[in-house]
Amino acid sequence: MNRTMRILVINGPNLNLLGTREPDIYGTTTLKQIDEKLAKAAQTANIQLHSFQSNHEGALIDIIQEKMGWMDGIIINPGGLTHTSVSLRDAIAAAGVPAIEVHLSNIHRREEFRHESVLAGVCTGQIAGFGEYSYYLALEAMKSMLSS
Amino acid sequence: MNRTMRILVINGPNLNLLGTREPDIYGTTTLKQIDEKLAKAAQTANIQLHSFQSNHEGALIDIIQEKMGWMDGIIINPGGLTHTSVSLRDAIAAAGVPAIEVHLSNIHRREEFRHESVLAGVCTGQIAGFGEYSYYLALEAMKSMLSS
Amino acid sequence: MNRTMRILVINGPNLNLLGTREPDIYGTTTLKQIDEKLAKAAQTANIQLHSFQSNHEGALIDIIQEKMGWMDGIIINPGGLTHTSVSLRDAIAAAGVPAIEVHLSNIHRREEFRHESVLAGVCTGQIAGFGEYSYYLALEAMKSMLSS
Amino acid sequence: MNRTMRILVINGPNLNLLGTREPDIYGTTTLKQIDEKLAKAAQTANIQLHSFQSNHEGALIDIIQEKMGWMDGIIINPGGLTHTSVSLRDAIAAAGVPAIEVHLSNIHRREEFRHESVLAGVCTGQIAGFGEYSYYLALEAMKSMLSS
Amino acid sequence: MNRTMRILVINGPNLNLLGTREPDIYGTTTLKQIDEKLAKAAQTANIQLHSFQSNHEGALIDIIQEKMGWMDGIIINPGGLTHTSVSLRDAIAAAGVPAIEVHLSNIHRREEFRHESVLAGVCTGQIAGFGEYSYYLALEAMKSMLSS
Amino acid sequence: MNRTMRILVINGPNLNLLGTREPDIYGTTTLKQIDEKLAKAAQTANIQLHSFQSNHEGALIDIIQEKMGWMDGIIINPGGLTHTSVSLRDAIAAAGVPAIEVHLSNIHRREEFRHESVLAGVCTGQIAGFGEYSYYLALEAMKSMLSS
Amino acid sequence: MNRTMRILVINGPNLNLLGTREPDIYGTTTLKQIDEKLAKAAQTANIQLHSFQSNHEGALIDIIQEKMGWMDGIIINPGGLTHTSVSLRDAIAAAGVPAIEVHLSNIHRREEFRHESVLAGVCTGQIAGFGEYSYYLALEAMKSMLSS
Amino acid sequence: MNRTMRILVINGPNLNLLGTREPDIYGTTTLKQIDEKLAKAAQTANIQLHSFQSNHEGALIDIIQEKMGWMDGIIINPGGLTHTSVSLRDAIAAAGVPAIEVHLSNIHRREEFRHESVLAGVCTGQIAGFGEYSYYLALEAMKSMLSS
Amino acid sequence: MNRTMRILVINGPNLNLLGTREPDIYGTTTLKQIDEKLAKAAQTANIQLHSFQSNHEGALIDIIQEKMGWMDGIIINPGGLTHTSVSLRDAIAAAGVPAIEVHLSNIHRREEFRHESVLAGVCTGQIAGFGEYSYYLALEAMKSMLSS
Amino acid sequence: MNRTMRILVINGPNLNLLGTREPDIYGTTTLKQIDEKLAKAAQTANIQLHSFQSNHEGALIDIIQEKMGWMDGIIINPGGLTHTSVSLRDAIAAAGVPAIEVHLSNIHRREEFRHESVLAGVCTGQIAGFGEYSYYLALEAMKSMLSS
Amino acid sequence: MNRTMRILVINGPNLNLLGTREPDIYGTTTLKQIDEKLAKAAQTANIQLHSFQSNHEGALIDIIQEKMGWMDGIIINPGGLTHTSVSLRDAIAAAGVPAIEVHLSNIHRREEFRHESVLAGVCTGQIAGFGEYSYYLALEAMKSMLSS
Amino acid sequence: MNRTMRILVINGPNLNLLGTREPDIYGTTTLKQIDEKLAKAAQTANIQLHSFQSNHEGALIDIIQEKMGWMDGIIINPGGLTHTSVSLRDAIAAAGVPAIEVHLSNIHRREEFRHESVLAGVCTGQIAGFGEYSYYLALEAMKSMLSS
Repeated sequence: MNRTMRILVINGPNLNLLGTREPDIYGTTTLKQIDEKLAKAAQTANIQLHSFQSNHEGALIDIIQEKMGWMDGIIINPGGLTHTSVSLRDAIAAAGVPAIEVHLSNIHRREEFRHESVLAGVCTGQIAGFGEYSYYLALEAMKSMLSS
Repeated sequence: MNRTMRILVINGPNLNLLGTREPDIYGTTTLKQIDEKLAKAAQTANIQLHSFQSNHEGALIDIIQEKMGWMDGIIINPGGLTHTSVSLRDAIAAAGVPAIEVHLSNIHRREEFRHESVLAGVCTGQIAGFGEYSYYLALEAMKSMLSS
Repeated sequence: MNRTMRILVINGPNLNLLGTREPDIYGTTTLKQIDEKLAKAAQTANIQLHSFQSNHEGALIDIIQEKMGWMDGIIINPGGLTHTSVSLRDAIAAAGVPAIEVHLSNIHRREEFRHESVLAGVCTGQIAGFGEYSYYLALEAMKSMLSS
Repeated sequence: MNRTMRILVINGPNLNLLGTREPDIYGTTTLKQIDEKLAKAAQTANIQLHSFQSNHEGALIDIIQEKMGWMDGIIINPGGLTHTSVSLRDAIAAAGVPAIEVHLSNIHRREEFRHESVLAGVCTGQIAGFGEYSYYLALEAMKSMLSS
Repeated sequence: MNRTMRILVINGPNLNLLGTREPDIYGTTTLKQIDEKLAKAAQTANIQLHSFQSNHEGALIDIIQEKMGWMDGIIINPGGLTHTSVSLRDAIAAAGVPAIEVHLSNIHRREEFRHESVLAGVCTGQIAGFGEYSYYLALEAMKSMLSS
Repeated sequence: MNRTMRILVINGPNLNLLGTREPDIYGTTTLKQIDEKLAKAAQTANIQLHSFQSNHEGALIDIIQEKMGWMDGIIINPGGLTHTSVSLRDAIAAAGVPAIEVHLSNIHRREEFRHESVLAGVCTGQIAGFGEYSYYLALEAMKSMLSS
Repeated sequence: MNRTMRILVINGPNLNLLGTREPDIYGTTTLKQIDEKLAKAAQTANIQLHSFQSNHEGALIDIIQEKMGWMDGIIINPGGLTHTSVSLRDAIAAAGVPAIEVHLSNIHRREEFRHESVLAGVCTGQIAGFGEYSYYLALEAMKSMLSS
Repeated sequence: MNRTMRILVINGPNLNLLGTREPDIYGTTTLKQIDEKLAKAAQTANIQLHSFQSNHEGALIDIIQEKMGWMDGIIINPGGLTHTSVSLRDAIAAAGVPAIEVHLSNIHRREEFRHESVLAGVCTGQIAGFGEYSYYLALEAMKSMLSS
Repeated sequence: MNRTMRILVINGPNLNLLGTREPDIYGTTTLKQIDEKLAKAAQTANIQLHSFQSNHEGALIDIIQEKMGWMDGIIINPGGLTHTSVSLRDAIAAAGVPAIEVHLSNIHRREEFRHESVLAGVCTGQIAGFGEYSYYLALEAMKSMLSS
Repeated sequence: MNRTMRILVINGPNLNLLGTREPDIYGTTTLKQIDEKLAKAAQTANIQLHSFQSNHEGALIDIIQEKMGWMDGIIINPGGLTHTSVSLRDAIAAAGVPAIEVHLSNIHRREEFRHESVLAGVCTGQIAGFGEYSYYLALEAMKSMLSS
Repeated sequence: MNRTMRILVINGPNLNLLGTREPDIYGTTTLKQIDEKLAKAAQTANIQLHSFQSNHEGALIDIIQEKMGWMDGIIINPGGLTHTSVSLRDAIAAAGVPAIEVHLSNIHRREEFRHESVLAGVCTGQIAGFGEYSYYLALEAMKSMLSS
Repeated sequence: MNRTMRILVINGPNLNLLGTREPDIYGTTTLKQIDEKLAKAAQTANIQLHSFQSNHEGALIDIIQEKMGWMDGIIINPGGLTHTSVSLRDAIAAAGVPAIEVHLSNIHRREEFRHESVLAGVCTGQIAGFGEYSYYLALEAMKSMLSS
């Protein structure tokens, strides 16, 4: 790919609370800080990011549709929608670009109902359990995927 | 019924992409074109249509509530919400008018999780698998139901 | 297709009772009357129909095999065999022509054991819940499918 | 607690229809009237209420996040989201205040799919089956919980 | 009921083998002998019986349809169809007369797949486990039901 | 068997209410009247009956143990214990005499949780759905079994 | 209702231990004290209570039967029988008066096997999770139900 | 065994289509040709074959019953009845001779619903996945079994 | 522990029949003899035993409650209540002393419904399959546990 | 294929015991004797065999990997690994040659947990239930497959 | 038995870590020390022990096969293989001597996936939850079994 | 941590085939090349790696035990053992150092039986779907975890 790569970073319900609630569990880094660090890392690699968070499933689908054509890949932390949103799954499938599913915690060792992701079926890969670092790994993975 | 029949046509998440994405699968007819064809067919039969699409479950419920009193029936393609939205089901039940469930593809031959519709319990009938033509059949069915 | 289209209309167990039993539920139209209305509608559209009913699973399979080569499509209301007959499914698959599954009632809102159709996996589409009108819609759908 | 207690009262999808639809089932009291009665009862007990209804899951999560810091407890009737919204559950968990789940009907004697609440895991208690009176009981329970 | 009662006695697949195969398990009484004993007992009570056996599900449905209008009740041992034939169930439901399900062995203590009867949902009662005597009890039960 | 046959008739929880509650459903015959009719029928056939009812699972097990040695067979309507009492099952198994399970209603067409009997595995036969007449049929069946 | 209302308050297995065991979890209020507070609150509202506790399922059924005719409603904390006693369910159904299910803890957030109540199907409402206060709420609810 | 061995070869629904439909999948050998090859191989080994195909479950049971006494073993390809026909299973069990289940394809790697055979419980062995060759292997196996 | 250890030995439904019924399976040692042997072994080790058997779940709970304060441990063979009694589980949990579950047979190799023990969740250990010897092992285990 | 065909014959855990343990069930032929008979039969057909047995899943995978390039097909009796070894399945899939699954007994009529083979998904066919003869049939099948 | 009894003591994966890892949970006794204590206790009772530990399922099967003929019984703690190893089960079954399953912890109160033992079906008894003492109890049980 | 970090890299069954089989799916990079790249990257970061591959579950457990004390973390691609090996899970839990689960493919979008990892419960995080790049991301993640 000759031009700058463009990646949509999506955060689902309640992820805007990162860093401000339950810091002993989720740390003190806010979503804004994560976005900034990601942006910086992206810039270095000549990648453009568009970050978006919403508690509304519909808004997450809207943004995916809106960025079709613009974006080369999706990094998404679907929050609680991971386990139920067939609509989000359909949106990602329709987007036709590689997507990476990101989770702060290792969802596979939490409550039974968090083990299955309905989005996994349309995502290239999944990274779970590394806290904020999960996002940076996803950016690395996306770079590698898009450049190969 | 002496007056003009009035029907609400609802399309759920991602159906606004019809005709513009994956044309080899879903054809090249856009949702707007389907709406126009439906409107024309309705006009001939002296039926008024109100068409509405949203990626937001809440907005779909809002429009159903808003059109209570006005509408005589509902034609709905719930998209990915088919399999999970108890709230949409409750809205249709509250509406108290006949509803027809429409699907472009035959959901019963796709992935296991698409076989069960939580909306079916409150819908008069279901038409699935005929692409855009599913809508026209639903209009025919609604006309027949309301006139009998 | 240049020649007259030919469609096999199949009705499974107990559908011969239509119109003569429980008229308050199923109406007073007999299967013979439905067949005649269908035939008339077909004639107008230059389509040939062959209608067949049996309470024997084997006889339903026999007729499908017999009409291979002659027929361009199948409209089938499998009755109680919908949920159990793998053999009927295999016969339709072997026929190699589009098939439409028809149900008088909306099977998806009846008893749990009527929700899953083992035939769906080999049918193009499904129409359920519109009483005798389900058949006319199926004929419309078939015409549309075969002419496209 | 020395200061006035503050409680967020949340109503999910379709509860805005209360009193205006199917009065034989749900009675003729509107949600507005329930809110007023609740407010009056709260005032007597020196409690502040903030009432909020939406058909949008996202809006329900938004209001919970917005009222963090202000509120001492949550009374929530999640409507159809009771059985599916992991995101709403996560929002309540993040809020870090006691929450009471309220239902007009006894969900445990209705359809099988209404027996399990995904929110229950993060709520102190559940009151179901007493119609509008469920809300007043919840207010009583909240008063008792917060004052002990 | 002033006239002679008329009862259809139906035996499903493999029951024609009774008394000729595995006599140590099923005894040496043939189905013909059971039919004769039943007929004699019926005659004494001024009841007319019509007995029918077939290995064909379709033929069992045919006879039920044929005897509608003539018969006042059905005694049926569905054999292996007990657990799978939705079509037979639909035929009995359509018949609109009381039906009694009879089994030679106690199906509820045999293999797991024999515990559930899909016919039970449309039968007044079930008698299982008394060998040929199950039929005589069923006749007694039918007499009692029809005379009350 | 040369001596008088002796049969224990057991009725489980709530069956003492027969005839006094919900007469439109269960009729007006009391359990005492059923016992008397059974006793009379037994006397004619030179059979001794011992009838026992309790709402206590333990008391039902006690009586079975107490009558071991005395009784030649058991007729039992376990009421609500049918679906849960492994202990009652073990008691019947230990008794070592034939047992017949009796139900007033056809448990196989009621709620799902009433379809499976944990006692069936140790009973010779089951009679369900004939109201009080179920008991008289059971007596007939027992006579036949013990005399063969 | 012109006369004094009469309510049966039932406590199932192990609830007699309240206040004497694991006070850090269940508090130090004994069942006797709860009964006294309930009685006082009832007296004020001109209601008669009869309180009963037993570890015996049979005794709980006995008391319900005994108080039929006398009582206008039932408040029941079934303890461990909540999840298994079909017989207790049948007794409440037979009683023909409104019943309220009460739990000290929120059973829906405890072990999986405590989520389903077999009694819920015959109870008007359920109150769970408010410790001893659950009983007072139930009394309030019963008053409201019986006076409307 | 001193006399000529006699084997019944049964083919269930749709197997009469072999070689004439979907030759790319099932090959071009017809069932008639398979029967002839089998017959030739049998003759060499001094075995008599009787081959029978039907789309009717009942006819398959009839032939098994008819050939009892004559036959020493059964080779059966039950087609779609493999997964549902308890009646066919009962017929084979009643026959009292060894039976071998044959499948053209490896049913254990096809759709989930084709993995379980209800006939397996009464068959000595199963051969699946070798196309027409499955039949010749079955004949070899039968020869070996009957001669040992 | 300086004083004499005190252990409650509980036997559930039907265990009073030990040694007197089916001696070929369960041996000829009676429960009374087991109790005496256990008592003797206990005396040697300076342990006091209290043995109790009942067919009544309630009585088993009563004795556990009665012996709270007195006892240091529980050895329990719950019989058929093993698989269903949540109330017995709750009683053991409330007792707050170590409990050992004992079974004569290896319940894990018997019928599927005997594999899961609802009591296991509150017992320290389980010994199953050694006939009467299971009790002596349990006493050994209890001694070891209490002395460490 | 112009050169000599080469087949790897693999036997899993416990199959080395063949012929020496439980001869009444498994016969007296040892695995060594089976290997020799197979080798002889192979030689006649100009086929080379390599036979290998191990109780170690890892060793079975090792040999498959080692023989890649050399072998034209695999005949495997996986023993107890049939139902659990995803790794063995992956090894066979990687091998890229046709594989035949062999079982001495008909696993489909044994315990429920032996019905499903995780290897079936990557094997061409399955032969089960013919004792040692299963191997000879597999060799026949392999010859036929490789030569076509 | 006149000669010295011989018992094989088997420990599965990770049990070699006993006493050296997580001493707060598993204590400080090493497997070697347990083996020595067991050996001493055995010697006193004139029993010979052979102790074996491996992390390899295959090696555990090898040792069982190797000691056939020599050993009179097996004491086995299968570790993590308890829940999955059908091969180990088959080896024990083939050994033809009594086997006792031993677990340090009470597996029935741990994670759901540890509740079911696939080995239980071939073991005489099971002892779980007594830490290292489980082994000594098993030796006692084995002595009792072999001497009776 | 002041000293050099030490990480054990484990590859389970069949991963030694990487790069040599099915290059179109898995690429042409061999496991040796991945190990070398990883080693180089580790060296740069002053990390010591020990790489190990085996097709033997037991050998994988052995190496984990052997490296206890030496290693600070584990990176493991368990291959087919992911879904079945409780023993490997127990070994990782015993190791007491953070572990990262790595998969070449996104196991959550493959066959149903590959969705659940029994190892996840004891791993900090999971990275799946990025081919060989999954390993490099795991190394990055491990560095980040160990340095924080």
